[in-house]
Amino acid sequence: MALLDKCEKFNLPQVAQELGLYPFYTAWQHMAADVCEVDGKSALMFGGNNYLGLAHDDRVVRAASDAALTYGSSLTGSRLLNGSLELHEELERELADFFGMPAALVFATGYQANLGVMSGLCGPDDVIFFDQYAHASLLDGARLSQSRMRMFRHNSPDSLDTALSSAEPGRKGSRLVVLDGIYSMEGDICALPELVEVARHHQATVLLDDAHGAGVLADGRGTLAHFAGRAEVDLLTLTFSKALASIGGAVFGTPSTISFLRHHARSMVFSAALSPAATAAALTALRVARQEPWRGRTALRNARTLAGELAALGYACAPATTPIIPVPMKDKVQTATVWRDLMNRGVYVNAVLPPAASARLRLSCTATQRREHLDEVVAAFAALR
Amino acid sequence: MALLDKCEKFNLPQVAQELGLYPFYTAWQHMAADVCEVDGKSALMFGGNNYLGLAHDDRVVRAASDAALTYGSSLTGSRLLNGSLELHEELERELADFFGMPAALVFATGYQANLGVMSGLCGPDDVIFFDQYAHASLLDGARLSQSRMRMFRHNSPDSLDTALSSAEPGRKGSRLVVLDGIYSMEGDICALPELVEVARHHQATVLLDDAHGAGVLADGRGTLAHFAGRAEVDLLTLTFSKALASIGGAVFGTPSTISFLRHHARSMVFSAALSPAATAAALTALRVARQEPWRGRTALRNARTLAGELAALGYACAPATTPIIPVPMKDKVQTATVWRDLMNRGVYVNAVLPPAASARLRLSCTATQRREHLDEVVAAFAALR
Repeated sequence: MALLDKCEKFNLPQVAQELGLYPFYTAWQHMAADVCEVDGKSALMFGGNNYLGLAHDDRVVRAASDAALTYGSSLTGSRLLNGSLELHEELERELADFFGMPAALVFATGYQANLGVMSGLCGPDDVIFFDQYAHASLLDGARLSQSRMRMFRHNSPDSLDTALSSAEPGRKGSRLVVLDGIYSMEGDICALPELVEVARHHQATVLLDDAHGAGVLADGRGTLAHFAGRAEVDLLTLTFSKALASIGGAVFGTPSTISFLRHHARSMVFSAALSPAATAAALTALRVARQEPWRGRTALRNARTLAGELAALGYACAPATTPIIPVPMKDKVQTATVWRDLMNRGVYVNAVLPPAASARLRLSCTATQRREHLDEVVAAFAALR
Repeated sequence: MALLDKCEKFNLPQVAQELGLYPFYTAWQHMAADVCEVDGKSALMFGGNNYLGLAHDDRVVRAASDAALTYGSSLTGSRLLNGSLELHEELERELADFFGMPAALVFATGYQANLGVMSGLCGPDDVIFFDQYAHASLLDGARLSQSRMRMFRHNSPDSLDTALSSAEPGRKGSRLVVLDGIYSMEGDICALPELVEVARHHQATVLLDDAHGAGVLADGRGTLAHFAGRAEVDLLTLTFSKALASIGGAVFGTPSTISFLRHHARSMVFSAALSPAATAAALTALRVARQEPWRGRTALRNARTLAGELAALGYACAPATTPIIPVPMKDKVQTATVWRDLMNRGVYVNAVLPPAASARLRLSCTATQRREHLDEVVAAFAALR
C-alpha cells in the first residue's frame, strides 16, 4: 500500500460536515474576551483555556505588541545558537520564583517542553509510568525517549504501586512517574500527595505537568501550592497557552537539571526560540496573575456555579473543583448534535469524541465571564433538555 | 542510578564558561536588523537565519504587533478544539499558492510540523530513509513514528538506491524518503532530481523539508522551484522561523493528506494554535518575499562574496550556493577560541561542535547586510589569521 492511500480513504470529516455535525477547526473571524465570531455570528467562548481572561487583557496584549516592535517579529533561530534574549531569562527567573522551583527553561511550546524533558532525560533503560488519562504530549515525550511505558489507573495510588512493583528498569535505568496537575478532559485534580508517596517508596523520580493548574489553583501558584507542602516533585512542566495567555512552555528543576536540558533536550536545541511577543505576553500575564489572585478564584467559582446549575437541569456533571466541566454524552452522534445545537444558540463548547476520551462536551470557565454569560449557557442547555 | 544523577555530573558548560569559551545561549539585550547587543556591546549578527532581513522589517513587525492588539495574545487552545482563525487559513492558502503545492497546514513550530507529518503518516511497518545530515526534527519525527530508519550518504543517489534496495517495509508498510532542501550545517543544496528519481524507481514517497530554501532560492519559491519542474515531491514542510521572520511551520500535500493530518498529527491536535502575532508576521513576510524577489538574491550574493573573500584569506570555504557558509575548524577548542575572538571583534557567528556536526563555524547572510558589514567580518577573520 502506498503511504498516502490511507489519506484518500479518510472521509469522516467531509461526511460530518455534510451533516452539519463537524465540531472541529471552527475558524473564527474575530476573537475578544469570552466572545468570538464566525460567519458574522457571535458565540460565547466556553471552550478555550483562557482561564484568567488575560488573552485579551490590555496589559498583556500591549506587552506582546510592544515586544514585536522592540525586538522584532522573530529570533530566527534556536535559543542555543542565536535566539536567546535577556527577556527569556527574566521570564525563567520569575516563573521559577512564582511556582516555587529552583530553575526554569522556556520552550517554544508546552508540547515541546514535555517532549524535551522526557526525551532529554530518559532512554531505553528507563521505565515511565503514566496515569491512564495523561496528556498526549507526555505520551509522545515518552515514545520519543524510547523508554518502556506502563499505565496505571486514573489517580489510583494502589494501581501505581502495582505498576512500580512489576516493572524493573534496565541496569542503567530509572523510574519516572508522570502526573498531570489537572486532567484536561476529566477536570479533576491529581491525587498528588498519595501518588508522590508511592513514587518515593519506589525511589522513582516525579514529573508533574501543571498545564491546567498553573495560574488557577491556589491563587495562581498551581497544583503544588494547592497541596501546600504535602508533596514535592523533581520536575515540573507547564504551558503558557492557557492561564498565561501566550504560547510556549517551561520545564522546572534544579539548576543542574536545567543546564543538562539546555544542551540535551532536542526540542529545545533544534527548534526556534520563543518569539519576543509570546515571551513578553507570558511574562506580563504571570505578573498580572500574581497581582490579581482573584482571577483564578473567579474562574473556579464560575465553574462551580455552572456545573451546579447544569447538574440541577439533569446533566451528569460532578461538582467542579477546577475550571473544566465535562458533560458526559451518550455517543459521538449525540455529542456532535448537542454541540451544533449549542452553537446555533450562540454557545461554543468543546466536543470530545473517542478515542480522545469517552464522548462528552467539555466546558471551561474564565475569570472574566459574567453572571449573564453563565445564564445564557444554562438557558441554552435547558432548551435542549 | 537515579534519573537526574547524569545532570549533576554534566559540568562542561560551566568549565567552558570559566575559560571564556562558551559559545551558546548568548542572551541579547536587544536585537535589530543585523546588529545585536550584549553586555552593552554591539555585534554584527552573522549567526541567524533571518535570510530576507524581514524579522525587523517595519511591515512585518507592525503586522505582528497589530494582530496581538486585534486578536489577543493567545488562542489558548488547539486549532482543532477552539484556536483556529480565518487568518490561519488565509496563511495556508497563500503558502500553498506561493510554494506550488495543493494545500497546507500551519503548525505551532517547524519542529512540530516535521514531527506531525511523519508520526501522523508513518508507523512501525514503514521504513524511513534519511540523508546522513538530515535535520534533527526529521529524525525525531521518525523516532516518534516508531518506523524503521535507514541512513544514506549525504546527497548520494547511489547510496539511497542501495538503502532502498536493502530495506523492505512490513506487509502493510511503505517507504518514505526524507530530504532537506538546503542542509543547515553544510550549506549545500539537495541533489533533488537525482534523489527523487531513485525514490520513484522504488515507489517511495518523498518528503522535502525546505526550512532553509523557502523564501531564498528561486526568487523565494524555494528548492522545488530552483529545480524548475525537474522534481516533484509528495510532501513538503517548512518553518516560518527563518526567511519568513516568524515562528511556526507548515506541511504541504494533497487536500486529502492535509485533512488526514488535521486529525492525526498529534503535534497539531494536542498543541496550541500558532499565535495571532506569529501568524500575521508569517503572512506579511510571505507577501513581502513574493513582492521583493531581490531579497533572496541579495542574501545569496552576500554569501558568495563573503565565502569568496574568506577563501582568499585561506579559510577552507567552498563557493557559496546558499546563504550558509560553513568554515571548517580543527577541533572544539579552535572553534570556541575563534568564536570568542570574533565576538570580541564585534562579529557573531555560530560555533558548531561535535556531535551536532564536525567542528566548524557557521556564518549566514541576509538581504539587509551591507558591503561594510561584510568588510567588517572579513577584517575580523583576517586579523585572526
